[in-house]
Amino acid sequence: MSDDLTHLSLAEASKLIHKADVSSIELTEACLARIGAVDSTLNAFITVTAEAARTSARQATNSKPHSPLHGIPIALKDIFDVEGVRTTAGSPILADNVATADSAVTRRLKDAGAIILGKLNLHQFAFGATGRSSHFGPARNPWDPERITGGSSSGSGAAVSSGETFMAMGTDTGGSIRIPASLCGIVGLKPTFGRVSRAGLLPLSWSLDHAGPMARSVEDVAIVMQVIAGHDPNDTWSSREPVPDYTKNLRAGVKGLRVGVPDSFFFDSLEPEVDAGVRAAIGVLESLGAIVEPVRLPYIYEIPSATNAIQLPEALAYHQKWMAERPEDYLDDVRYRLELGAMIPAVTYVQAQRLREMAVAAWRDEVFSRVDVLAMASTQGAAFKLEGSDLSVTLSLIRLTNPLNLMGVPVISVPCGFTSEGLPFGLQLAGRWWDEATVLRAAYAFEQATEWHPPKGGRPPI
Amino acid sequence: MSDDLTHLSLAEASKLIHKADVSSIELTEACLARIGAVDSTLNAFITVTAEAARTSARQATNSKPHSPLHGIPIALKDIFDVEGVRTTAGSPILADNVATADSAVTRRLKDAGAIILGKLNLHQFAFGATGRSSHFGPARNPWDPERITGGSSSGSGAAVSSGETFMAMGTDTGGSIRIPASLCGIVGLKPTFGRVSRAGLLPLSWSLDHAGPMARSVEDVAIVMQVIAGHDPNDTWSSREPVPDYTKNLRAGVKGLRVGVPDSFFFDSLEPEVDAGVRAAIGVLESLGAIVEPVRLPYIYEIPSATNAIQLPEALAYHQKWMAERPEDYLDDVRYRLELGAMIPAVTYVQAQRLREMAVAAWRDEVFSRVDVLAMASTQGAAFKLEGSDLSVTLSLIRLTNPLNLMGVPVISVPCGFTSEGLPFGLQLAGRWWDEATVLRAAYAFEQATEWHPPKGGRPPI
Repeated sequence: MSDDLTHLSLAEASKLIHKADVSSIELTEACLARIGAVDSTLNAFITVTAEAARTSARQATNSKPHSPLHGIPIALKDIFDVEGVRTTAGSPILADNVATADSAVTRRLKDAGAIILGKLNLHQFAFGATGRSSHFGPARNPWDPERITGGSSSGSGAAVSSGETFMAMGTDTGGSIRIPASLCGIVGLKPTFGRVSRAGLLPLSWSLDHAGPMARSVEDVAIVMQVIAGHDPNDTWSSREPVPDYTKNLRAGVKGLRVGVPDSFFFDSLEPEVDAGVRAAIGVLESLGAIVEPVRLPYIYEIPSATNAIQLPEALAYHQKWMAERPEDYLDDVRYRLELGAMIPAVTYVQAQRLREMAVAAWRDEVFSRVDVLAMASTQGAAFKLEGSDLSVTLSLIRLTNPLNLMGVPVISVPCGFTSEGLPFGLQLAGRWWDEATVLRAAYAFEQATEWHPPKGGRPPI
Repeated sequence: MSDDLTHLSLAEASKLIHKADVSSIELTEACLARIGAVDSTLNAFITVTAEAARTSARQATNSKPHSPLHGIPIALKDIFDVEGVRTTAGSPILADNVATADSAVTRRLKDAGAIILGKLNLHQFAFGATGRSSHFGPARNPWDPERITGGSSSGSGAAVSSGETFMAMGTDTGGSIRIPASLCGIVGLKPTFGRVSRAGLLPLSWSLDHAGPMARSVEDVAIVMQVIAGHDPNDTWSSREPVPDYTKNLRAGVKGLRVGVPDSFFFDSLEPEVDAGVRAAIGVLESLGAIVEPVRLPYIYEIPSATNAIQLPEALAYHQKWMAERPEDYLDDVRYRLELGAMIPAVTYVQAQRLREMAVAAWRDEVFSRVDVLAMASTQGAAFKLEGSDLSVTLSLIRLTNPLNLMGVPVISVPCGFTSEGLPFGLQLAGRWWDEATVLRAAYAFEQATEWHPPKGGRPPI
């Protein structure tokens, strides 16, 4: 029973709580038991806050449900501050860094009644896509523990996929939500830049960082977005754009929805199985009534180097002092990229931000005037073996996700299919700025049209 | 009569037009005659569009006034595009650069019925505060033609002060509206960053550039702001913040208004006469009922170098191609500063933008929680002699204005007093972000309490 509980979707678990068919204590104990059973293999958690979770679960059990997250066990990537719990960022430098306050997202989740199970493993300082480089060792993929989870939100991917938690918060500076979602067979949403507050998060790159939810279904992601989206004066780049109801039109289907398929870049170098899977997925959307058309993406081949020119110096600006004082406490791939940041002149950075402005205007006028969403693969292939997954694997993994951080549009990764080896890979659906609702609706329609998405049967062997 | 017409305030001239006591043709001919009489001395105009102005004035005379700018002759700094007219930016590179469309501000002014007299001289590429470096020679100060006007909106300062135009548009990246306003004895407003569109302007530094009005009275500036403020999708950094009525509370006085006087930096190195004049001006506000108190400005000594680290590489990002191909077409002081921009690493730029965010938050929480406006000098002294006014003079002139570009708050420079040599200098009043209305109200109260502001009698000898 307890194992079955942990594989419910968040929405299903919430319904049981609201009907009093299950208690928050039962859900929390089930997740803690699942963590006890599988985390020695998966290494998804850096810190499990079992006693705090039990205390919160008792309070939730004794109070009336007031939100869909009431009593639901969740976990956070270990760069979100939780008061009284250490925030390590996967680094020895911060191994004893106990947070004195909640991050804005933590606070909203707690206020909604969520139960915090603990803090999740990540690629050190969120700066790498394999999920392998962490002071606490690599997280392992529930579909094959000899493989990477993808990163940097590696523990988030593994924990959600394996049923250790109903939802996990991730962050995405170059793909760090969507890559582990793709490789672990779950759903992850990078919201519009400015939609979810980053206050109380350890930054990687201020102008590219996004916080977002990872869960086992599209509906679950929509439910969490409703709680965490909205303006926060403590994040300078947080927007006042109004937050719509994300679940209202979730089931409205895709009839007449215009789906753009990029005519280049995103299909340049896919593994054949991923290429076939993504084209089949687009066919599914078409069969559901979507209008599919090819679309040219302005500046797409200039965007990756502009993203680098912004990301590396922004990361170094934060890390410069520690890099000077404790370079040995950085894992090699992270230190190498930070060192690259020092070589970039300010004028290059400024020109990259300028290119970003021009590209955003061009995509607005030439792309999103014609289509409602873009469809493409999340990763070029499925999960690599842990052994040998170095910086070149990071660079390969971020290729399809990274450009959309510069553009700031909302993008979801939803399970797309499996390779012949039984490894999952994701479909990216990107939408207009602030229009997470359409992205969620398209992803939901696709998910419901497949037989194997996680709550139904896309469950890893572990 | 014609000379008297040109020294009316814009508001007074507008009233005459609305009562049909004077026609737009008369006002325009009066300004053109004034330009004919004094511009060979002042060199305020690069291009006079006399025939186009006459055509527009005839149309305005034959149509019913529909706005306070209806039929009013104005002019623009020569980095604002006016369709069919060259935009030179004071550079030989752009001497034949005819604009194919109006800037956003030009369009709004034309739509309001303003008559465009022509394009005004400036420090080359708006990159210097003396107003001396221009391919078209220096503009000269109407209070003493052997002296600088201040810059970079040098022609704007001279033309408004001397009665060649009722209003001029300037831009302000480090003080380029407020410095010539101070040295020419007129009113100039740098609005909140994001308040007035920069679309169709030649950029100097995207994240520090502001466009704003220069005129002979505070009321005139308020009238123009009502026309030019508001969101423009063609300027990425344009805000959707609502635009209030700027003239409604102009006469409400300063009783109870909290006026902060910076306890350092802004009073460190003033000329004694300016120091005494600014303190007397603050005394006038207090005598009108304002509550004056000292205030500490967080980060004020770090802000100038952060501003440099942003301004120089942003300027170079725009100029890099021309600097490589035509370095000889840059005047020495401009080229020198652009070359400095090449030496700044991206990480320094990013840290400067980060400091900006922290300083904005600290001023919001610690300064503008306690006071409504800040009062200080606009320039440390009055106008320098043209002879010998090199880069060091620019650096001296921008010292008190530059920090407020980084902060992005609205700031007005209003005539404060005269030195014993009869040269004017300005008082800066800065307010909360988006609260131009309070800044205008405070400046109006001060202006009305003095006997010598331009429409009454602060008129240059020329």
